[in-house]
Parts: sequence; C-alpha cells; structure tokens
Amino acid sequence: MSKPLVRLHVSQPLSMGATITLPRESSHYLIEVMRMQAGDAIAVFDGANGEWEAMIDDPHRKQARLTAQRQLRPQETVPDLWLLFAPIKHGRIDFIVEKACELGVAHVKPVITQRTIVNRVPVDRLNANMVEAAEQCGRTALPSLAEPVQLDKLLANWPQDRTLLFCDETGGTPILEALQEKPRGTPAAILIGPEGGFTDTEREMIRAIPTALPLSLGPRILRADTAAVAAISLWQATQGDWA
Amino acid sequence: MSKPLVRLHVSQPLSMGATITLPRESSHYLIEVMRMQAGDAIAVFDGANGEWEAMIDDPHRKQARLTAQRQLRPQETVPDLWLLFAPIKHGRIDFIVEKACELGVAHVKPVITQRTIVNRVPVDRLNANMVEAAEQCGRTALPSLAEPVQLDKLLANWPQDRTLLFCDETGGTPILEALQEKPRGTPAAILIGPEGGFTDTEREMIRAIPTALPLSLGPRILRADTAAVAAISLWQATQGDWA
Repeated sequence: MSKPLVRLHVSQPLSMGATITLPRESSHYLIEVMRMQAGDAIAVFDGANGEWEAMIDDPHRKQARLTAQRQLRPQETVPDLWLLFAPIKHGRIDFIVEKACELGVAHVKPVITQRTIVNRVPVDRLNANMVEAAEQCGRTALPSLAEPVQLDKLLANWPQDRTLLFCDETGGTPILEALQEKPRGTPAAILIGPEGGFTDTEREMIRAIPTALPLSLGPRILRADTAAVAAISLWQATQGDWA
Repeated sequence: MSKPLVRLHVSQPLSMGATITLPRESSHYLIEVMRMQAGDAIAVFDGANGEWEAMIDDPHRKQARLTAQRQLRPQETVPDLWLLFAPIKHGRIDFIVEKACELGVAHVKPVITQRTIVNRVPVDRLNANMVEAAEQCGRTALPSLAEPVQLDKLLANWPQDRTLLFCDETGGTPILEALQEKPRGTPAAILIGPEGGFTDTEREMIRAIPTALPLSLGPRILRADTAAVAAISLWQATQGDWA
C-alpha cells in the first residue's frame, strides 16, 4: 500500500493549474515538520471543488506555494443531517464538532437552552477543529457551523420537511426502530440537550413540532457528547451513507 | 421531578444495614463540596449487589460513614460485549474507556498491535475513569478492564463462540447489515486498531478466525475513538439492550 498523501484544507478555490499560497502554519507544517521539498505532492481540498493533487513549487517555510495539477476526487455529496447541540464545557464541545465532521454531518448548530451553562461558543476554535477533522477523515465538503440560536427561535422557524430527532432522556422510541421506519432521504436534525437536560416546558415545545420524534438511546444516562456520537452513527447506518 | 441522589461507587460490599466508610476523596466531595450532613441520603453501588440508598451517619470530611438502608435497584445484567482496542494517546484512550462504560460494554481489553505506538497502558487511571462514568450513567455493574495483551496471543486463544467484529478500514460488510444478520444473544467483541491501522499480516490473522466479521463504518476514515463509539452504539441498538 503506498503511503497516503499529506492532506490539507486550503482557502483558495481549486481548479486545474490554480496556484495556492499556504498560510504560515500550514507552510511550517509541510516544510519544517514534514520536510517536504519542491516537486513533492500533497492532497488539497477547498470545501467546494473536490480533492486535488498539488505540487510544491516554492517550499517557502512561511508561505509555501503549490500548483493544483490533477483532480483526485470530485466534490462529495454529504447526507442532509444537521446536529443541534447545547454548548457544553471545553473539551467536550471540541469533541462533539470533531466527531460530527468525521461521522459525516452536513451542518452543525449550537442551541441555547434554559439549562445551558456555557453561553460563549468559541466559533473560530470549533471551525478549526472541523477543518482538522476533515483533513484527517478525507472529507472534501466541510460541515457548516452556524451562530448559536435560542431554542424557542429555532423551533419557531422549524422547516416543515425536516425530521427533528430528539434524544429524550425521559424516554422515546428505541432509536433503531424509529430510524428504520422513516423513508430514506428524509432531511433530519439530531437535537441533543445540555448536561442538565431540557426543562419540562422545553420538552413540550419540542414535542409540539409536527416532525419531532422522541428517541431512546438505551437504559443508561449518556453524556451529551456520547449521545451525539451514538445518534449520528445510528442515523448514518440507517438513513445516511454507511449502507 | 425530584432531584436525583448523588451517586457513588463504594468498595465495601453492600447489603441491608451494611456500614460504609468512604475514602478521603469521596468524603471530601460529599461533605465539603456537596455540603451534605448527617441524615442526608445518597445512592451507592459496589459493582456486585445493585444500587442502595445509604444514609450519612457521620459526616466526617476525611472518612464519612454511611449505612445502607434500602436497595433501590437490583444488580443489572450487562449485554455480553467486549471492546478490544489498541492503546492510543492520552485523552483519546481516556475517552474510549469512559464511552465504553456509558454505552454498556461488559469487558475492556487493550491489545498491543504491530503499529501500536503507546505501549504503557495507565490501568489505574482508566479504571478511575470507568468508575466515574459508571457513577454518572447509572450502571451498577462496572466494566472489567484486562491487562494489555499481544494481538497474536489474543487470537491464538480466541473463544469459539464469540463473534469478532473487526472494524476494517480496507472494507467489509456495512455494519448495520452485518449486525442485523446475527442471531441476538451471540457473545461479541469489537476490535479497533491503532491510529496507523493493522498491518496486512495482522489483517490476515484476524480474518482467519472463524467467527471474524469484517465491518465497514462508512466512507470516511474514522479515528480509533470515533470508530469504537460508533461500533458499540450500533451493536447495542441491534444486539444489545437499546431495543
């Protein structure tokens, strides 16, 4: 098996012959850490135009320059799954967005609930985590990360055609059963509450959404980050692109 | 909804009227952090005799004493699932055992493979993580954690009746399909490789086990910790106690 190419996200649009100048951090990584030289090739993706092989023209340690010379893979189609989660503490929130990217979520949206303790969402850091996860897992499409939204505003504007998969610690339909009953291709969103759970009022508001589907993730009490990964995995295996 | 009881693992065996003396750390947490007093009740479990309500007799800040006065839940039966994983770096290995406990794995065994970089397994720290996860998720049975074993030794002694679910990044049967074909109640083990994957020789050795079942977890390259959580979740939903 040949060694896989180093893989980097770039912010310039890619096409045949496009020139890419890497920012300082990526240049340092490539030239100083990976010891790459002029003529060496890496894989790059811009989030919109698939994955390309790019050759290093100028191995400058602060602003390396490359040329895109061959498309390796076309842009992927990511299944239409959103992850909505109440921000939780440092470490666990980073974990959630990393895993959402690896597992193939299309869109990530932090939701502020009554029991949300962490109100500041480090959007830049979370975006950086998702880029790193995309580089590692082979995605060509980055997940989009929305600004935080209040739960009541989110529900007031809920799209009619999107199933709201609601991980309810007070009980619901076993997740596999619920997901296998849905026709494939239904747009969906997984909603995960904060560490303290949803309030009764919030739970009623959520259940009032016509497409809401309360789910059970088994007999143990899962942390928010565990519930997110479990629910995404089940959705991908039944409704998404793991089949 | 009444506030759930504080929940602690204790190392003394529990029965009606049993006296428990907490170690320094748990005593500090209960008396100094949670401000509990004589007459207050908490939930305790010993890993073998279910969950009990225990009343604080002596709120000593270094060695609090309690009496078990009522069984709240009998000892649970955990589905017969093992998690076998190649040790990975700090943080991610802690994450794996925490999630294995929350998701209901019975037995956890670190496996040393040819590409395993981390050879020292911090068994005490991992056990402490599992205890904390068990306190949080409501388990009464702690997962057992084995000493690390070499992959070839593990395979040489493989139990005939246990399915070896092998997350193979080179391809396999889609995980949901593979798991839904198995009769429920089949003892199983999930095997996750190191960050660098298994070698070709190792992959052949694994596939030579009669009960080995190579699985695919979709089109993206998952980190070892992500693959572990995804595979356990799918197993619990199809074969375990999430139905």
